[in-house]
Amino acid sequence: MFNLKAIIKILGFLLVVEGFFMLISMLVALLYSGPDVLPLLYSSLITMGTGGLTVGAMWKAEKKISKNDGFIIVTMVWIVFSFFGSLPYLMSHSIPNLTDAFFETMSGFTTTGSSILNDIEALPHGILFWRSLTQWLGGMGIIVLSLAILPVFGIGGMQLFAAEVPGPVPDKLNPRIQQTAKNLWAIYVLFTVVESLLLWGGGMTLFDAINHSFTTMATGGYSTKQASVAYWNSPFIQYVIIFFMFLAGTNFTLTYSALAGKFDKVYKNEEFKYYVLFVVIFTAIIFSGLLLTTQLGYEQAFRDTLFQVVSIITTTGFATADYLTWTPFLMVLIFTLFFFGGSAGSTGGGIKIMRIVLLLKNSYYELRRLLHPNAIIPVRFNKRSVSEQIITNVLAFFMIYLIIFFVSTILFTLIEPDLNSSMGAVATCLGNIGPGLGNYGPAENFFQVPAIGKWFLSFLMLLGRLELFTVLVLFSPAFWKK
Amino acid sequence: MFNLKAIIKILGFLLVVEGFFMLISMLVALLYSGPDVLPLLYSSLITMGTGGLTVGAMWKAEKKISKNDGFIIVTMVWIVFSFFGSLPYLMSHSIPNLTDAFFETMSGFTTTGSSILNDIEALPHGILFWRSLTQWLGGMGIIVLSLAILPVFGIGGMQLFAAEVPGPVPDKLNPRIQQTAKNLWAIYVLFTVVESLLLWGGGMTLFDAINHSFTTMATGGYSTKQASVAYWNSPFIQYVIIFFMFLAGTNFTLTYSALAGKFDKVYKNEEFKYYVLFVVIFTAIIFSGLLLTTQLGYEQAFRDTLFQVVSIITTTGFATADYLTWTPFLMVLIFTLFFFGGSAGSTGGGIKIMRIVLLLKNSYYELRRLLHPNAIIPVRFNKRSVSEQIITNVLAFFMIYLIIFFVSTILFTLIEPDLNSSMGAVATCLGNIGPGLGNYGPAENFFQVPAIGKWFLSFLMLLGRLELFTVLVLFSPAFWKK
Repeated sequence: MFNLKAIIKILGFLLVVEGFFMLISMLVALLYSGPDVLPLLYSSLITMGTGGLTVGAMWKAEKKISKNDGFIIVTMVWIVFSFFGSLPYLMSHSIPNLTDAFFETMSGFTTTGSSILNDIEALPHGILFWRSLTQWLGGMGIIVLSLAILPVFGIGGMQLFAAEVPGPVPDKLNPRIQQTAKNLWAIYVLFTVVESLLLWGGGMTLFDAINHSFTTMATGGYSTKQASVAYWNSPFIQYVIIFFMFLAGTNFTLTYSALAGKFDKVYKNEEFKYYVLFVVIFTAIIFSGLLLTTQLGYEQAFRDTLFQVVSIITTTGFATADYLTWTPFLMVLIFTLFFFGGSAGSTGGGIKIMRIVLLLKNSYYELRRLLHPNAIIPVRFNKRSVSEQIITNVLAFFMIYLIIFFVSTILFTLIEPDLNSSMGAVATCLGNIGPGLGNYGPAENFFQVPAIGKWFLSFLMLLGRLELFTVLVLFSPAFWKK
Repeated sequence: MFNLKAIIKILGFLLVVEGFFMLISMLVALLYSGPDVLPLLYSSLITMGTGGLTVGAMWKAEKKISKNDGFIIVTMVWIVFSFFGSLPYLMSHSIPNLTDAFFETMSGFTTTGSSILNDIEALPHGILFWRSLTQWLGGMGIIVLSLAILPVFGIGGMQLFAAEVPGPVPDKLNPRIQQTAKNLWAIYVLFTVVESLLLWGGGMTLFDAINHSFTTMATGGYSTKQASVAYWNSPFIQYVIIFFMFLAGTNFTLTYSALAGKFDKVYKNEEFKYYVLFVVIFTAIIFSGLLLTTQLGYEQAFRDTLFQVVSIITTTGFATADYLTWTPFLMVLIFTLFFFGGSAGSTGGGIKIMRIVLLLKNSYYELRRLLHPNAIIPVRFNKRSVSEQIITNVLAFFMIYLIIFFVSTILFTLIEPDLNSSMGAVATCLGNIGPGLGNYGPAENFFQVPAIGKWFLSFLMLLGRLELFTVLVLFSPAFWKK
C-alpha cells in the first residue's frame, strides 16, 4: 500500500544533501584550522555514504508516490536529519551524548532555537557553523514545504491563497511548484547575503554575521554567543536583525510580489496588515510599560521592546533583554505572543497570524450573526468569503494546538514542578520559538532537563514545525488501514 | 427602538420577587433572634418598594418586547439584583463596604462562590441564609434561562436539543416554555429538599443542611463554614454532596427524562456519557497520583479526589482538600478542569461539556477529512449531524472565552503580580467556580484584592454566567444601531 522503496530512496537522496552541507561546514573548520575538521569530515562521509548506498539499493523504486507516502516522507526527513545531524556534535565531543545532540539538532532543523549549551563560545567554528546551518536548511525546507508541498496535502491553511498555489498533483512536483520553490529559494539566499553584509558592516565578524543571518532568516534564533544578540550592544546591528526577523516572519510569496514591484498585493494582504498591527500594538504597550517601570532611556526601551516583540512573534527567539526581569504584566504580554507565530508561508512557527485573524474574525462575526440570525454572514479574508470548511479546519488546528499545549504542560510538570517553567518550555518548543519562562528564560537553557524531557520537547518541536496534522495523521488508525 | 418601559417594568417586578426572598431570610433571622432581623426587613422593604413603585409607574408599558430588549433585561437582572442584594450585608454591617458586598452578591447570583469573607461563622443566621439563597435563586434563574429563554435568542449551544426546546417566539414566553420552566423548577426544589434531608440525617444541623443544599444544587459552593465542607469529616455527608453536585452539573432536561422513566434518553445522551467519562478519567489519574505522593489511605484519597474533581468540573467549588498542597502535576490537572464546566442546561458554569466534546470531535474529524479530502464528514452528536453553523458558533464561544481569559489575566497581573494567582482568579470567576490558584486557593479568599480588581472579577462572573454573548452583544455597535 505504501511505496516504501520510493520513501527510502527519497530520504537517502536528502541524506546526501545533508552530508554535502556538513562538508561545507568542514571547509569552515579548515579555514580556522579547528579541531573539528575530521569529525565533520567523518560525519559527512557517514551521512553521504548512508544516503548514497540507500539510493543505490532503491534505484529501481517505482517513482509514483501517494499523498500518504508524502506524509511519511515529510515527518521522517526531520527525524532522520536530526539523527545524522547529531553526528558532528557527537564526533567532535562538542555535545558528548546523543540525547543532548539530538535535542540541539532537532531544535536546529525545526528552527526552534532552544539550546542545551552552557558555553557556546567554547565550540569550534565548524561546529557552530553547522549548528546555524541546520536552522538555515530547516527554514528553507519549511518555505518550500509550506508554500509548495503542504498545500498539495490540504494542510497549512494555505488554501486561502489557492490562486497562487499549484493544484493537487499528489504523485510528483509539477513544473510550477518547482518554479515557485526556486523563486523562494532565491529570495531566501538573497536576504541572507544582504543581512550578512549589513551585519558585517555593522561591526560583527564575517563569521558571526553569516551565522546570525542564517538563523535570522530561518526565524531560528541560534547565536554564536551565549549572551545571544545582547552581546553586540550596537543599535545598528540590532535594528538590522529586527528588520530581517520581520521579513522572515512575512509570507515569502508576498515578499516576492513586493520585490517584483507589485506593491498593491502587499497593501491588500490582510494577514500582513494584522501582522504589522500586532507588532505595533504590543510594542506600544510594552514600550510604555518599560518607560513607566524601568530607568531605561527612550531609545533603549523602544529598541528592547521592538526587538523582543519581533523576535517572539516571528518565533525567532534571539534576545537582547531578559523579559523575565520585566514586571509581570509585560512578561505575560510577551508570553501571549508565544501563541501568535509568523505569517503563513514564512519561516516562522506557531499558530500563525492568518489562523489567529480568522479565529478572531469568526468570533466577532458570530455576534453579528446573533443579532441578524437570518442573514448569512461569512467571514471575509482578503476580500473573499472564507468557506466554513476552512474555518472548521482552522478551529481544529487551534484546538489540537491547545490540547497538545495543555496535556504536554501537565505531563511536563512531572519533570518540572514549576508551572510557569513547564508552560513556557512546552509553549516555546511547540511554537518553535526558543526561550521560555521561569527556569528556561532567555538567560537560561534546557541543559538541566532530564533525558526523557528532552526527547519529549524534541517531539513537540517536530509537531509544531510540521503544522501538527502532518505528524498526527501518522497516529490515526485510518492512515494505516486498507 | 427599545421598549424601555417594559424593560424597567420587568426589572421592577423581579425586584419584588427578590425582596420577597429577603423577607424569608428575615424569618430565619427571627427564628434565631439574630441582630439581622431589622437589616433584612429594611432591605426587603427598600427592594420591594423600589420594585413595586417601578412596576406601578410603568404599568401601561407596551407588553411586546423584542429579542434585543431581552438581551438587556437578562444582563440587567443580574446587575440590579446584585446591587439590591448587597443591602442585607451593608445594613447589617456583615460586609461594611459596597465593593465587597457587591462582589459577594454577584458571586452568589452567578453561582460562582468566590468569597471575600474571612470569618464566615461570625455572620448571623439570616444573613448566611440570604447568602446561600442568592446562589439558589441564581441557579434556578440559569436553568430557566438556559433551557427556556436563551435558545430563543440563539445562544447557549442548545440548538442541538432543538426538538426539546420551544421555537423562536421572541415577544413573550409561550405556554410550552412556561410548562418546561415549571417542570425544571419542580425538580430543582425536589432535589434541594432531598439533599437537605440527607445532610440533616448525616449529622449537619438543619440550618447547615438547607444552606448547603441550596448552594450544591446551584453549583455555587458557598458554605456556612470557613473551612467549607472539610468542616464535616463525615464520608456520608461528603458522598451525598458529591452525588448532588454531579446531579446539579447534569442537564436538567435529561434528569427530568430519567425521573419520567425514559432511561434510554440518558444512555443515548453523548454529553452525559462524556461528562461521566471525564470525571472517571480525572479521578483515576489523580487518585493514583495521591496514593503515590501522599500518605492518605485508599478511601480518603478516593474521596478527596472524587470530591475535588466533581466540585471543580461542575463549577461548584466546595473544598474538602486543598489541591494547592498536592504535587504540581495533580494541581495542574485540577486547573485543567477549570476549563470544562458542567453540562449544557445544568446550573454549572464554564465552557460546558458539550462544547468541549464538539471541539474535540471536530479536531479528530479534521484528521479524517485530511485523509479523505473528497468525502463530506460532518461531526455527529447524539447520532445527528451537527451543522457547520453550530461548529463555528461553538468555536466563536471558545475563542472569545480564551481571549477574555488571556486578556483578563494580563490585566489582572497589574494588580496581582503572581502569574498563577492571576490566572487562577480570572479562570475561577469567568468559569463561576469559586476557589483559584496561588493566593486564591481553596484555603484563601478574595478579601485582599483591591477594589478595582473586585469589580473586574465581578464583571467576569457576569460574563461567564450569561454565556458571554448575552453580555457582549450589548457592547457591539450593531446592537445600538437603527
